[in-house]
Amino acid sequence: MRSVVYPGTFDPITNGHMDLIQRASSLFERVLVAVAADTGKDPTFDTERRVELAKQVLRNIPKVEVRRFSGLLVDFAREQGTPVIMRGLRAVSDFEYEIQLAGLNRRMAPDIETLFLTPAEQYAYISSSLVREIARLGGDVSTFVAPAVQAALRERFG
Amino acid sequence: MRSVVYPGTFDPITNGHMDLIQRASSLFERVLVAVAADTGKDPTFDTERRVELAKQVLRNIPKVEVRRFSGLLVDFAREQGTPVIMRGLRAVSDFEYEIQLAGLNRRMAPDIETLFLTPAEQYAYISSSLVREIARLGGDVSTFVAPAVQAALRERFG
Amino acid sequence: MRSVVYPGTFDPITNGHMDLIQRASSLFERVLVAVAADTGKDPTFDTERRVELAKQVLRNIPKVEVRRFSGLLVDFAREQGTPVIMRGLRAVSDFEYEIQLAGLNRRMAPDIETLFLTPAEQYAYISSSLVREIARLGGDVSTFVAPAVQAALRERFG
Amino acid sequence: MRSVVYPGTFDPITNGHMDLIQRASSLFERVLVAVAADTGKDPTFDTERRVELAKQVLRNIPKVEVRRFSGLLVDFAREQGTPVIMRGLRAVSDFEYEIQLAGLNRRMAPDIETLFLTPAEQYAYISSSLVREIARLGGDVSTFVAPAVQAALRERFG
Amino acid sequence: MRSVVYPGTFDPITNGHMDLIQRASSLFERVLVAVAADTGKDPTFDTERRVELAKQVLRNIPKVEVRRFSGLLVDFAREQGTPVIMRGLRAVSDFEYEIQLAGLNRRMAPDIETLFLTPAEQYAYISSSLVREIARLGGDVSTFVAPAVQAALRERFG
Amino acid sequence: MRSVVYPGTFDPITNGHMDLIQRASSLFERVLVAVAADTGKDPTFDTERRVELAKQVLRNIPKVEVRRFSGLLVDFAREQGTPVIMRGLRAVSDFEYEIQLAGLNRRMAPDIETLFLTPAEQYAYISSSLVREIARLGGDVSTFVAPAVQAALRERFG
Repeated sequence: MRSVVYPGTFDPITNGHMDLIQRASSLFERVLVAVAADTGKDPTFDTERRVELAKQVLRNIPKVEVRRFSGLLVDFAREQGTPVIMRGLRAVSDFEYEIQLAGLNRRMAPDIETLFLTPAEQYAYISSSLVREIARLGGDVSTFVAPAVQAALRERFG
Repeated sequence: MRSVVYPGTFDPITNGHMDLIQRASSLFERVLVAVAADTGKDPTFDTERRVELAKQVLRNIPKVEVRRFSGLLVDFAREQGTPVIMRGLRAVSDFEYEIQLAGLNRRMAPDIETLFLTPAEQYAYISSSLVREIARLGGDVSTFVAPAVQAALRERFG
Repeated sequence: MRSVVYPGTFDPITNGHMDLIQRASSLFERVLVAVAADTGKDPTFDTERRVELAKQVLRNIPKVEVRRFSGLLVDFAREQGTPVIMRGLRAVSDFEYEIQLAGLNRRMAPDIETLFLTPAEQYAYISSSLVREIARLGGDVSTFVAPAVQAALRERFG
Repeated sequence: MRSVVYPGTFDPITNGHMDLIQRASSLFERVLVAVAADTGKDPTFDTERRVELAKQVLRNIPKVEVRRFSGLLVDFAREQGTPVIMRGLRAVSDFEYEIQLAGLNRRMAPDIETLFLTPAEQYAYISSSLVREIARLGGDVSTFVAPAVQAALRERFG
Repeated sequence: MRSVVYPGTFDPITNGHMDLIQRASSLFERVLVAVAADTGKDPTFDTERRVELAKQVLRNIPKVEVRRFSGLLVDFAREQGTPVIMRGLRAVSDFEYEIQLAGLNRRMAPDIETLFLTPAEQYAYISSSLVREIARLGGDVSTFVAPAVQAALRERFG
Repeated sequence: MRSVVYPGTFDPITNGHMDLIQRASSLFERVLVAVAADTGKDPTFDTERRVELAKQVLRNIPKVEVRRFSGLLVDFAREQGTPVIMRGLRAVSDFEYEIQLAGLNRRMAPDIETLFLTPAEQYAYISSSLVREIARLGGDVSTFVAPAVQAALRERFG
C-alpha cells in the first residue's frame, strides 16, 4: 500500500486532524489530504482558505499533500491513484455515519477500501464544529488548533 | 391486524423503502404509504412529486396505497382506520430517534401501536439523504433507487 | 398475518414481557410464547418451571399459547406455521444484538420475518437478569413481576 | 457543594427540564437555570421569552434562579461562582454529545466539574424540538409542557 | 447535599476510580466508597482484600470513607444516610447499563437520586477487567493502578 | 507499511474473518493472523485446532501467515516486527470495545498503531459465537464458515 486519501471538510483543520495525518504519514508513503469543495452547506471558510490553512499547518509533516476536490470521493481517489480512503473515528455517532459511508463507497467502487484510525485520547473531544462554536463565543481555541487557524478564526469571528 | 401505515418523507423513495414495503405487503392486508407534506424543512422534491414517484415505483406491489398526509401522524393513522404504524430500523441512530418517536406517539395515542422491520442487509446503508448527496455530486444512483427516481434526480441535479 | 412467535428464555417472565404479549395479542390472531430449552448457560429456573410460570401469568390474556422449544428458532417457527418472529426492543444494546440475530435468521430462513415492538416506558428498565439480581440480594420485586413469579423467586433465593 | 448551573436553550422549557430542576433543587443549595442567548441558530422563542417562560413555570420551585447568559458557559459559571455544571441525560445520542462537551469544558476550565442527572422515565421521550414539532402540526402538548408554555406555543404556531 | 455513596466491585480499584473519588471529594462533604460483597460472580480479590486496597490507595484523599456492603445498594445508601448515589460514565455501553440501573433504583427507592461524573480523558479506557486481563498476561499495569494494587496483582497472577 | 497483525480468538474462523484477511492481503505486504492462546475463558476449539483451521482455510490467500501467540498483543506485534494491528469493525458494540482496546494498547505501546477495516455487508451479522450457537443447535452453518470449519463444528457438536 503506497498512499491514502484523507478526505474532509476541514472547516477548519484541527489538532485532531493533524494528529491523524501525522500518524498516517508514518504508516503510508503518501497522505493526500482532500479538502471537499462541495460541502452541501455554507462553510465558515471557503474552499481556498480551507486548503490554504491545511497546507500551512501541515507543511512540516513529510509525505503529505493537500488538494481540493469536488464531486464523488471515490472518483477522486481513483483519479489520484490512491485506492485507499482513511477516516478518523472518535465516537459512536462518527462510527455509524462512517460505516454507512464506507458501505456506500464500497458499493459504488468495490476496488476502493476504507481504513479507520483513532486519534490520541486528548483529541477525542475536538471537532471542527465545536471549535467554530467556541471561537464564535469568544473562547480560547489555542489548545485545539494551530496558531494560523486560531488567527483565521479570530479574524472571522472578531 | 388488517393494515399498517408506513410514514415518511420519501424524498425520494429508495430501494430500501421498497424492500420494507414489499415485506410488509406479504404480512399485512394493506400497506398505506403516508408521504409527509409537513417536513419542517425544504424538501428536494415537493409533496406532489414525492407522492407521484412513490406511486409509480410501487404500482406493482399488491395491497399498497400511497397517500399524502399533513398534521400529526397519529391523527392520520386513526382517520384511516390503520392503528398500526410501521417503521424501518437500520442503525443505532435510527433506533434512538424511532424509540423516542414511538414513545411520544404512544403517549399521545395509546391505542396506536408502532412496529419495526429491518431492511435486507444490502439496503442497510441507503438513506434518502445520502442518495440525494450522491446525485448532487454527479454519482450513479442506479443501485439505490428505481429508474423513475433516478430520472427525477438527474432532472433535479442536472 | 395470523400469528407470531415470541421467543425468549423467560428466566423468569417479567411485567415487561407481559406488556409486549398483551400488545401483541391485540394485534395478531395468535401469540406463541416460545420458551427456549437450550439457553447455552445454566438458567435460574429449569425449562419446565419457566414454561409453567409463563402459562400461569399469561392465562388471562386471550390468544396466547406457551410452548417450550429446542433447536433453532427459525425451524420451530416454520414447524408451528408462524413465519413471523416478534422481539422486544428496549435499549441500544438490545437493538444491536437483535439486528444481528434478525439478519442471521433472515439468511438462514428468508421466508421468516422479524417484527419489533417496544414496551411501555415503565418497563424499559426491567430485564430478567436484573430482576434475578434484585431477588438474589433480597430486594422487593413486586413491581417488576407477577405474584406467582415473585413467589418462585423467593423460594429460589430464600 | 453549594450551587449548580443548569444551562440550555429552553426553547421552550419542558416538563422534562422541570423534573430535573425539581430534583436538583432538593440536592443543591441553589440551581441557576442559564438560558443561552447565543444558540447558533434561529430559536422559536427569543431569549427574553424563553427566560420569561422559564421564570414563570419555575416560580414555585425553591432555590431556583433563572438567568440569561451569552458567551462561553464555563466563563458564566465562574462569574456566577457556581463551578458545577448540571446536565440531563436521556438517550445515547445525548450522552455522546454531553461527554464531548464535558470533555471540552474540562479542558478549557479544569476547575469546573460537570454532573449528570437522568429524568424520570415518563420524561425520557420529551425534547424541546419534538414539542415544537407537535405544536407546529397542531397536536396537543399539554402532557409535555406547563400551561404557560402551551399557551405560548399556541400563540406562536396558531 | 452532604454526602454521596460511590458503589462498585473495585476488583481492583484503578486510577480511573481514584480520579472520580478525588473529584467527588472536592464537591461533597463525604464520599462513601461502597465495596460490593455480593458480586454475583467470582471476584479476583475477595471482599476484604478489595476493601483493604481501596483504603490503602485512598488514605490521602480527604473526606473519603471505604465500607463493604452487601444486599441492595439503595438499602445501604439509606442506612448510611447518604441518599445520593454517584456513578462514573465512560462509554456508551456504560451509559446504557447505568441508565437502566438508575431507573430501577429510582423505582425501588424514589427518595434516592443518582448522579454521574465522567473521568478525565486519560482514564476513559481503563476498567478493572482490562487491568486484570493485562496483569494476567504479564503486562505492566503501573500507569493504570496505584503501586499497592500493582503489587497485589503481581502476587495474584505471578 | 509492510505488514499488519490481525489478532483474534478465531474460535472458529468465519467467512467474515476471511473477507477481512482477503482485503488486507491486497493492501499490505504481509498479514500475520495471530491466534490467541490465552482467551481468558474455555474456547470451543483448543489453540492448536484454531490455528490449524485458520491455516487450512487461508492457505490460498497470498501473503498470509498464521501464528499462535500468548501474552500481550503489543509485545507479540513488536517481536514480529509488525507495528500495526488490524481489527474488524461491524457494530457499535464492537466499536466501543475496540476503541477502548486501541486506547489501552496505545498507552502501553505508543509506537504501535491500530487500523480498522469493515467487512462486506453480507458478513456484518456473523460472529464466531453466533456460528457456534447455530452449530450447537443443529443449524446449517455452511453460508457462514468454510467447509473445513463446518466439518470441525459438526464433529464437535455432533
